[in-house]
Amino acid sequence: MLLIGLLSGTLAGVIDLAVDWMTDLKEGVCLTAFWYSHEQCCWTSNETTFDDRDKCPQWQKWAELMTGHAEGAGAYVLNYFLYVLWALLFSFLAVSLVRVFAPYACGSGIPEIKTILSGFIIRGYLGKWTLLIKTVTLVLAVSSGLSLGKEGPLVHVACCCGNLFCSLFSKYSKNEGKRREVLSAAAAAGVSVAFGAPIGGVLFSLEEVSYYFPLKTLWRSFFAALVAAFTLRAINPFGNSRLVLFYVEYHTPWYMAELVPFILLGVFGGLWGTLFIKANIAWCRRRKTTQLGKYPVLEVIAVTGITALLAFPNPYTRRSTSELISELFNDCGALESSQLCDYINNPNMSRPVDDIPDRPAGPGVYNALWQLALALVFKIVITIFTFGMKIPSGLFIPSMAVGAIAGRIVGIAVEQMAYHHHDWIIFKNWCRPGADCVTPGLYAMVGAAACLGGVTRMTVSLVVIMFELTGGLEYIVPLMAAAVTSKWVADAFGKEGIYESHIQLNGYPYLDVRDEFTHRTLATDVMRPRRNDPPLAVLTQDSTTVEDVETLIKDTDYNGFPVVVSRESERLIGFVQRRDLTLAIKTARQKQDGVVSSSVVYFTEDAPQLPASNPQPLKLRRILNLSPFTVTDHTPMETVVDIFRKLGLRQCLVTRSGRLLGIITKKDVLRHMAQMMNQDPESIMFN
Amino acid sequence: MLLIGLLSGTLAGVIDLAVDWMTDLKEGVCLTAFWYSHEQCCWTSNETTFDDRDKCPQWQKWAELMTGHAEGAGAYVLNYFLYVLWALLFSFLAVSLVRVFAPYACGSGIPEIKTILSGFIIRGYLGKWTLLIKTVTLVLAVSSGLSLGKEGPLVHVACCCGNLFCSLFSKYSKNEGKRREVLSAAAAAGVSVAFGAPIGGVLFSLEEVSYYFPLKTLWRSFFAALVAAFTLRAINPFGNSRLVLFYVEYHTPWYMAELVPFILLGVFGGLWGTLFIKANIAWCRRRKTTQLGKYPVLEVIAVTGITALLAFPNPYTRRSTSELISELFNDCGALESSQLCDYINNPNMSRPVDDIPDRPAGPGVYNALWQLALALVFKIVITIFTFGMKIPSGLFIPSMAVGAIAGRIVGIAVEQMAYHHHDWIIFKNWCRPGADCVTPGLYAMVGAAACLGGVTRMTVSLVVIMFELTGGLEYIVPLMAAAVTSKWVADAFGKEGIYESHIQLNGYPYLDVRDEFTHRTLATDVMRPRRNDPPLAVLTQDSTTVEDVETLIKDTDYNGFPVVVSRESERLIGFVQRRDLTLAIKTARQKQDGVVSSSVVYFTEDAPQLPASNPQPLKLRRILNLSPFTVTDHTPMETVVDIFRKLGLRQCLVTRSGRLLGIITKKDVLRHMAQMMNQDPESIMFN
Repeated sequence: MLLIGLLSGTLAGVIDLAVDWMTDLKEGVCLTAFWYSHEQCCWTSNETTFDDRDKCPQWQKWAELMTGHAEGAGAYVLNYFLYVLWALLFSFLAVSLVRVFAPYACGSGIPEIKTILSGFIIRGYLGKWTLLIKTVTLVLAVSSGLSLGKEGPLVHVACCCGNLFCSLFSKYSKNEGKRREVLSAAAAAGVSVAFGAPIGGVLFSLEEVSYYFPLKTLWRSFFAALVAAFTLRAINPFGNSRLVLFYVEYHTPWYMAELVPFILLGVFGGLWGTLFIKANIAWCRRRKTTQLGKYPVLEVIAVTGITALLAFPNPYTRRSTSELISELFNDCGALESSQLCDYINNPNMSRPVDDIPDRPAGPGVYNALWQLALALVFKIVITIFTFGMKIPSGLFIPSMAVGAIAGRIVGIAVEQMAYHHHDWIIFKNWCRPGADCVTPGLYAMVGAAACLGGVTRMTVSLVVIMFELTGGLEYIVPLMAAAVTSKWVADAFGKEGIYESHIQLNGYPYLDVRDEFTHRTLATDVMRPRRNDPPLAVLTQDSTTVEDVETLIKDTDYNGFPVVVSRESERLIGFVQRRDLTLAIKTARQKQDGVVSSSVVYFTEDAPQLPASNPQPLKLRRILNLSPFTVTDHTPMETVVDIFRKLGLRQCLVTRSGRLLGIITKKDVLRHMAQMMNQDPESIMFN
Repeated sequence: MLLIGLLSGTLAGVIDLAVDWMTDLKEGVCLTAFWYSHEQCCWTSNETTFDDRDKCPQWQKWAELMTGHAEGAGAYVLNYFLYVLWALLFSFLAVSLVRVFAPYACGSGIPEIKTILSGFIIRGYLGKWTLLIKTVTLVLAVSSGLSLGKEGPLVHVACCCGNLFCSLFSKYSKNEGKRREVLSAAAAAGVSVAFGAPIGGVLFSLEEVSYYFPLKTLWRSFFAALVAAFTLRAINPFGNSRLVLFYVEYHTPWYMAELVPFILLGVFGGLWGTLFIKANIAWCRRRKTTQLGKYPVLEVIAVTGITALLAFPNPYTRRSTSELISELFNDCGALESSQLCDYINNPNMSRPVDDIPDRPAGPGVYNALWQLALALVFKIVITIFTFGMKIPSGLFIPSMAVGAIAGRIVGIAVEQMAYHHHDWIIFKNWCRPGADCVTPGLYAMVGAAACLGGVTRMTVSLVVIMFELTGGLEYIVPLMAAAVTSKWVADAFGKEGIYESHIQLNGYPYLDVRDEFTHRTLATDVMRPRRNDPPLAVLTQDSTTVEDVETLIKDTDYNGFPVVVSRESERLIGFVQRRDLTLAIKTARQKQDGVVSSSVVYFTEDAPQLPASNPQPLKLRRILNLSPFTVTDHTPMETVVDIFRKLGLRQCLVTRSGRLLGIITKKDVLRHMAQMMNQDPESIMFN
């Protein structure tokens, strides 16, 4: 746990620093040291005064560096051109690296990790190569300015670290269950470093990622998240010695009447979640099924090009998304130079203090509103096409950006309404003239929470992450109200969050713990063989020959076979894995004298002593699982589904009074559940 | 959920108000309106100025009211006497009410709720009477000044509310599983209102109380906690429109070097947890087994008397424990009048600002240190004897008080060391002369978390509750470090927290999800009947008579009986509950013609047609559970324990190739686990 925390904390720190530098590289370069980002460059310069910290002579935009002119249309076009060029270069590198070295490094990784934690194995998904390539391409993808975040992929990176350390200890590498517990904890560490939110990370792992979360894992996750957050703080990539990514401080409490706009933002978040999931899934399905999917590099290049072309002219989309969110969350202080804070100041108020009353908006604010509205539409559309491309891409930051933009717009609207209409009944009680009633930044925060909630359907972890992100513990009730509304609205249009939708799209055999199974079917309706099927492929305990077994293995592709006393009595004695069986026969044929095709395979405790001239028996009791999981044919499917979920089974045998009747596999359960929900059971592909 | 949240929020508000009033009633009365507490009384008075808000003419101490003298030895003795008298009266009322009306209302209730949520039924434990009496006696017990808190009992109260509303809806009253889910959510609402910490409440329910916590419950708990916190805020018992009980604001960050004292506080917390659990359990066992347990009223009166006598002279124990904690957490501002803030001010510093540098301690501080040290010893000793008496008593507040006192003492020591020894290497790097380096209040907070963690072994929920309590999101790493250390230290001396220890003491059949079972025993070693036991009591599907069944029911006290094809083949076909069997036979004897003692009971699908002269058969297939849970005799006990835990089973049948061999009940599992841990299995009493 300690190692996982240390490694993922370090990786996250490195990624943060690299992203900072490369994002700024698109705009210009530091003359004193080219490896400094814009902020670091100006920070180390001695000549700058506090006021224009962002404009120091050491930092030069490309046009200035190349032509000597910092202003003018020519410089603008050159900067524009180089911005797009850098973006294209980064994304081309990212997609190429992914395609050549580690195809599993693409996407957010959370759907796959959910599936892996539910008991399915995707070989190589958490390997060393994936770790390395995902780390590098994540930096490239984020720096390219695409509408994606680094949070989901960081969870994948942390899980790769967890897997790496698991393979060093035989206790974990041999036991899939224990390995999964470690991976759950690693996921917590991933979110912990992605946001600097250790508690939120643990809850995210619990609520969203993990399938089975025992208390021991809770405790371990907590420790891993703590170590990771600590390491990140020691690296200190944001340079402010805070763990908190978007630290905000608001000076006014919220009022009951403000719950109305907060709930409206929740509704917006729910609608956005629904729209995004439906559109994104439709687009991804199209990619999977048509020619489009064959040119992933071209697709990435095209989307990057469009993103960069459209993003540059608008100041709110040109900068990195985290910076945008940070600005939107901010309350307008007296010293704020942002366009969003261009209010008309009351001339009577000579010295600006912290507690600034509501003011009429100046032209800058109206200008910003227009740009924000355009940015909102742009972000909504481009995110739909971006998520799911063949590069590492997270969804947290874009969703939060959409919500923050919408929230800030609503916030400014409410603020101006409250300022201009003090006498309306709704404002009368809580907003006297000259008071500071409305904080637009708070609305941005609530909107971000609502949109993130609509997409992922998180509740508790969402609220915890949000207040760990912002330090706004006072605003827990608005956040909760928005999260609840958003989940309700989004659930009304479809139960599945984005991760479950992608799991379904990819056809992973994932048994959602959230779906309730309430139908009255019985195990006998689901088990194989069906009425007209050939009988179940079974082995007998003392009358199958080696040849019979080999034929059975060749003719079928089942994972294992039940062993019965005899074909007549069909009384079950155990279950044998295909893998063990194949290996045992191969070894016996090579090393054991007298084992030939006609040797009889014995699963009983004692094999008869045969004369040496006869083919020698092959004793295989040691590979027989004597305690296979069984249910009776009358067991309600509700119970069966429950057992599959809680015990993480892959198959279960069906008996009646000890007689073997059939078998139910996880896939049968999934097919049956799809059928009961009136979906086409064949839509669940198992790849 | 809405109703549960509303009702428990309201009850908590009423309890808070009543406790406030009655605690102050011990010292004096408000002349303008006797139903006002000290603070409310002075708040409504117009004459008071800001400086002496606590001393208004309307509020009179008893001595002043009765004799006219506010000062002097006589008045002190009279106040002392009345303080003790009121305390005795309150606690006598509390213990009498509990004894007469609702014996289940005593204690914290959390061990019992844990047991109930694990599937055991304690009738009446969550009834209406318990709810009513617990609410009333909780107020009395807290007001009496005993060293106990209201948090645990509030969880019990909220669960009673949950149970009450469950019984109104048949969906929940009929299904134990669904009822338990509601109770989990109610527990979350309980903690939510106890501390004003909705997220902490959900996590507490998840980590500490609940046995099985599906995501649906998480979501419901979240909603219930939100509504409850909201209701409480609307009632606003603390009068500061904050949800946060002990709001603190610190102005300085913490330094890496401070982790050493934080970890030392963690060690102290772990040691305190171990000491408390061992001593308290020893005392409770003595109460259970000796004469002492026969005089609960006398015990409560005696402990109250001693508490009140010892508490009054020390100002830190005289006030209510929450006020004490609140003062200990506070940072010393410039305007603070508390004795703890009696520092020697630098005369050069004319205007006090928020950011006060470290100062040398004045005589008041040294005085306070002595009093705090005495209070620490007193609290440690008295809490051991208080928890477990026959009155409602929570453990959170006393534990936090112990930790806060210890933390504050350590904090002041570190602060003075840093002030007087700036040149020591450890201080050199982070504490320049004249800077504000050490915040003693933060140490108190960390100490409180460590002690609470040592006693309850919470981790994540503890940290969340602490930062929801204090708003100190910046200090998450110190809190986590202390919580982790405290848990490690305490776990080294014994795995069980206070609640598990009380569960064991009371012998509830509780299967702890945290114990790992790693022994290599098999189901066949645990099942009954053992080798020399009489054979298992079974029914046959078509050859048992009504009389046989009645004899079996009379002779045994098993909860149910397996049904087999015949005694010879012993092939299992199902399981029938004792309750259903008794009821079915009784009904049949009364209402069904021809059913007599010699009638044959049929569990098969078709009963043979007999001539009317013969005793008519009794068909009981409808009460037969056709899908009893079975494992084979070779199943490792590790798997069996896992199944019992995850599926919440009460019994499980053991078969081999369909032949019934025996039965394993939850009690067998618990006995076996105790045996494997070298404990006396008979120490687990089942009452």
